[in-house]
Amino acid sequence: MPKHKLRIIPLGGLGEIGKNMMALEYGNDIVVIDAGLMFPSEETPGVDLLIPDISYLLERQKNVRGIVITHGHEDHIGALPYILPRLAPPIYAAKFTRELILVELKQRGVKTDAKLNLVNPGSRVTLGNFTIEFFPVCHSIPDSVGLIIHTPLGIVVHSGDFKIDYTPVISEATNFNQLASLGAKGVLLLLSDSTYAELPGYTPSERVVSDTLDRIVSEAKGRVIVTTFASLISRVQQVFDVAVKHGRRVFIIGRSMKEIVSMALKTGYLTAPPGITCRLDELKTLPHNRVIVLSTGSQGEPTSALVRMANRDPGSRVQIVPGDTVVISATPIPGNETLVSKTTDSLFRQGANVIYDKLAQVHVHGHGSQEELKLLLSLVRPKFFVPVHGEYRHLCLHASLARSMGIPKDNIFVLENGDVLELGQDSGKVVDRTSVGVIYVSGLVTGELDGVVLRDRKLLSRDGVVVVTIAIDAQSGKLAERPRIITRGFVDAGEGQTLIEKGRDVVLTALENRKGGFISRRRSDFDRSFVDAKVKDSLSKFFYERIHRRPIIIPVVVEVRRKNSEFRSQ
Amino acid sequence: MPKHKLRIIPLGGLGEIGKNMMALEYGNDIVVIDAGLMFPSEETPGVDLLIPDISYLLERQKNVRGIVITHGHEDHIGALPYILPRLAPPIYAAKFTRELILVELKQRGVKTDAKLNLVNPGSRVTLGNFTIEFFPVCHSIPDSVGLIIHTPLGIVVHSGDFKIDYTPVISEATNFNQLASLGAKGVLLLLSDSTYAELPGYTPSERVVSDTLDRIVSEAKGRVIVTTFASLISRVQQVFDVAVKHGRRVFIIGRSMKEIVSMALKTGYLTAPPGITCRLDELKTLPHNRVIVLSTGSQGEPTSALVRMANRDPGSRVQIVPGDTVVISATPIPGNETLVSKTTDSLFRQGANVIYDKLAQVHVHGHGSQEELKLLLSLVRPKFFVPVHGEYRHLCLHASLARSMGIPKDNIFVLENGDVLELGQDSGKVVDRTSVGVIYVSGLVTGELDGVVLRDRKLLSRDGVVVVTIAIDAQSGKLAERPRIITRGFVDAGEGQTLIEKGRDVVLTALENRKGGFISRRRSDFDRSFVDAKVKDSLSKFFYERIHRRPIIIPVVVEVRRKNSEFRSQ
Repeated sequence: MPKHKLRIIPLGGLGEIGKNMMALEYGNDIVVIDAGLMFPSEETPGVDLLIPDISYLLERQKNVRGIVITHGHEDHIGALPYILPRLAPPIYAAKFTRELILVELKQRGVKTDAKLNLVNPGSRVTLGNFTIEFFPVCHSIPDSVGLIIHTPLGIVVHSGDFKIDYTPVISEATNFNQLASLGAKGVLLLLSDSTYAELPGYTPSERVVSDTLDRIVSEAKGRVIVTTFASLISRVQQVFDVAVKHGRRVFIIGRSMKEIVSMALKTGYLTAPPGITCRLDELKTLPHNRVIVLSTGSQGEPTSALVRMANRDPGSRVQIVPGDTVVISATPIPGNETLVSKTTDSLFRQGANVIYDKLAQVHVHGHGSQEELKLLLSLVRPKFFVPVHGEYRHLCLHASLARSMGIPKDNIFVLENGDVLELGQDSGKVVDRTSVGVIYVSGLVTGELDGVVLRDRKLLSRDGVVVVTIAIDAQSGKLAERPRIITRGFVDAGEGQTLIEKGRDVVLTALENRKGGFISRRRSDFDRSFVDAKVKDSLSKFFYERIHRRPIIIPVVVEVRRKNSEFRSQ
Repeated sequence: MPKHKLRIIPLGGLGEIGKNMMALEYGNDIVVIDAGLMFPSEETPGVDLLIPDISYLLERQKNVRGIVITHGHEDHIGALPYILPRLAPPIYAAKFTRELILVELKQRGVKTDAKLNLVNPGSRVTLGNFTIEFFPVCHSIPDSVGLIIHTPLGIVVHSGDFKIDYTPVISEATNFNQLASLGAKGVLLLLSDSTYAELPGYTPSERVVSDTLDRIVSEAKGRVIVTTFASLISRVQQVFDVAVKHGRRVFIIGRSMKEIVSMALKTGYLTAPPGITCRLDELKTLPHNRVIVLSTGSQGEPTSALVRMANRDPGSRVQIVPGDTVVISATPIPGNETLVSKTTDSLFRQGANVIYDKLAQVHVHGHGSQEELKLLLSLVRPKFFVPVHGEYRHLCLHASLARSMGIPKDNIFVLENGDVLELGQDSGKVVDRTSVGVIYVSGLVTGELDGVVLRDRKLLSRDGVVVVTIAIDAQSGKLAERPRIITRGFVDAGEGQTLIEKGRDVVLTALENRKGGFISRRRSDFDRSFVDAKVKDSLSKFFYERIHRRPIIIPVVVEVRRKNSEFRSQ
């Protein structure tokens, strides 16, 4: 009879639950799964990226036995450079993942004492009361793994990000026998990827993209420019293969694409005949029907290679010409739709023929659809089920899939980030909620997301700022000059001028209505704040009445002393 | 032999071409098609809405014979309240469209001398050299029409927003014979809706939604809450029909839904048995399986009825309870994806079962897919073709559909807003480009989009604003006190304090480095601007080095005079 219960705690995610970081806790042992970052949205203006709040782990630092990483995508490894300086347990990752972690740490200039242990599919690691086995899964990056976690209460299976691909392009197909035999033994808990729980049917095999690319390249009279995620090595492999088949050479453009491709070639994740890639000078001499350009920019990132081509950036080493075929071999990540559409439009304007997801199957995603999720459930046959990696609606839909397969309602837990699920052998419940405020990184500042700062930024972005300077004569306590107003992002300088002038009068009257002036011989804070309030109230009211806008108003009150104030002598 | 050429000018659209407004010009006659508004994006912070720039029309005011409206959606009528005060030619619209225009004008409190003429499908209107016939098309709002425009050069057909629906729920099916006979006679030019030129196949009939709704309502044990576009009357009709069939009563919530439904019932566009709708007090007493709630909020609009339910707003007259089924009978308009997802998540959190486009066919859109676009082309068989209503990529795709059907490349024109296409009987070309800067409306201000203001707003939303007060002693020309700094939206007040304090020192040193002080006896502008520059440069540099942020810095320089400045005596 195990002494403790098993605690499952989703720690990281913005909208998505348990995506970027999770913790498993038994007694004095904590194992962390993934340490990824989140990308900012309109809700977080000025924020570069967000990372999970690890205070729960810091409070139990001595219990943290290790961080196991399921794969090398930013949203699973990207927080390590920020976390390791504060919390440095051993890290366990497969080879390709490890390579990407090293790149991350290097880019951020982070040195760490944390041991970066290499694990292979099949290898076992014991961390306190947990023994963890890694099994290969298919996903849109090499060396993706799922986890089989042996605990005193039973076996926990974590799917990682996965899809089921019987004919993957590079990684191995999912090992059903292993999962099935686990299912036969009995699995306590399944944690499974819910990202595409909305989609009926099966996610197509990566192979189908090969056929599409083959057709496109064989029909293209000119250059073919393919953009995709740099880490989607299987796609890059497909581009190389199609280039070989059609006697084209590949020119690679975009920093991250160059880095990862050369890394993948070195480490053998990517196989290509020598001389398949070409240099810029070679590109210039090659006939267009002998060229494939492999580029970054599949998400319409403003500074990416593809966007610079699309915008005729003179600095771009490749310029779009009519006859070019551009293949956007990716789908927009939610939030990037507009950027991608704009880029597509610009490419068409340059005379390119653009082929994207809506027009042909130039991309398949890396997550399982409903039938694959059901397949995993039926293989593992868990007693308890916790859907993870998805927004709340995805978890709910995944949960109802599980119910439809006979898992009792009470054994399924739809969690929120921060929920502490305590699991016994026969039942479980959420016993606690830890604080999981996300941490923002903007520039070199990191800290709790400050509601006030973000609110002000949103206000500023709507109506701008109005600075009002109030000079008050120290002797008379009266205005020493007409209030001055400076604005930014408020109204058009030209047309707004009359409005601003009237605004100055409004402040003037508001302040003069109080006889006796504002500042007693000994300056009192009361008066200063009174002036502040008066200025804000009168101006806000005025601007709203006049133009229905509410800029942020900043009064600057200065005490001056004048020999002869022309102003007062009026 | 016609004296003039025919000019086609797309005047309105943000991204989409010829969507919100177009002009046809022959000699001294101009006919305007539609007068719609555009919705703002992240690119236009603080802007409420955008309207077409009508300067081209104002310069030729006496030639403008009329504005014909194809249907009553905001992006086709929404600019009228802003345009009519400056340009008031007769307006021609079908009944339902006219009703909505009247509502628009009323809401904005606009009185106009413009004559609002009622036209019926089939009626003809002669405007100078143009004679216009209106033909019914199926779209997601009643009384949508296409235009048959007889010109001295030949017939021009404008599709309006359309799809082909052989079994529409309320409007009549498209009259193919009329179009076919036109095609037989010979059509000079077709202007056709490209919105869904990306989608292969056919857009499903509105009927399929009836079946889905029927299934959902018959399976629902509790209340069914349906949200859709208020103007999508056919959908509202379907909701009423399904309510009748299953013996449920309909409670309507949300201002626009209430208004349009009652208008549609009055005008007979909506038919429902008496007593089908219910009041709030009745709602409270009805068993849940006897209720359908019809609500606004299908786009996740923050103040809409559905979003208030989703967020447990205590003010909301309907609260979500477990057992409720919510049907989002719409798809997110590009840009609204995040709002809609958030709303869906919140509804699930409240325990509702949410059914949306990804999960069931609860919505079909109002635009034709590729096969329908081809069908129209093959019926009308135009000599020239101009794809309209879509972003640039949609027009390109629509153009290649036309080429695939045998229209010569030189007879197809993919235009940009502002292009002036001049068409003869045998050829056409773009001869000119008019300025089509969009006009923004924010609050009560309208004007050209001001690049500077928008740029500042974006900067402010990223890093906020820093106001630096510099008090300079008039006599000595030296600093009269330590620089003061106020910030908004920059850094967290607490943690940022030390940074701000250092910033004050930075300014101090920057300014004191110049001996002799800044202000000569007679104040010179040079000095003021020198101080400005010094403050901005030193602080920007400092903040960027420290935290990699670039707030907008506003120096406020004040001239003061002190009897004894503790500061200088230091």
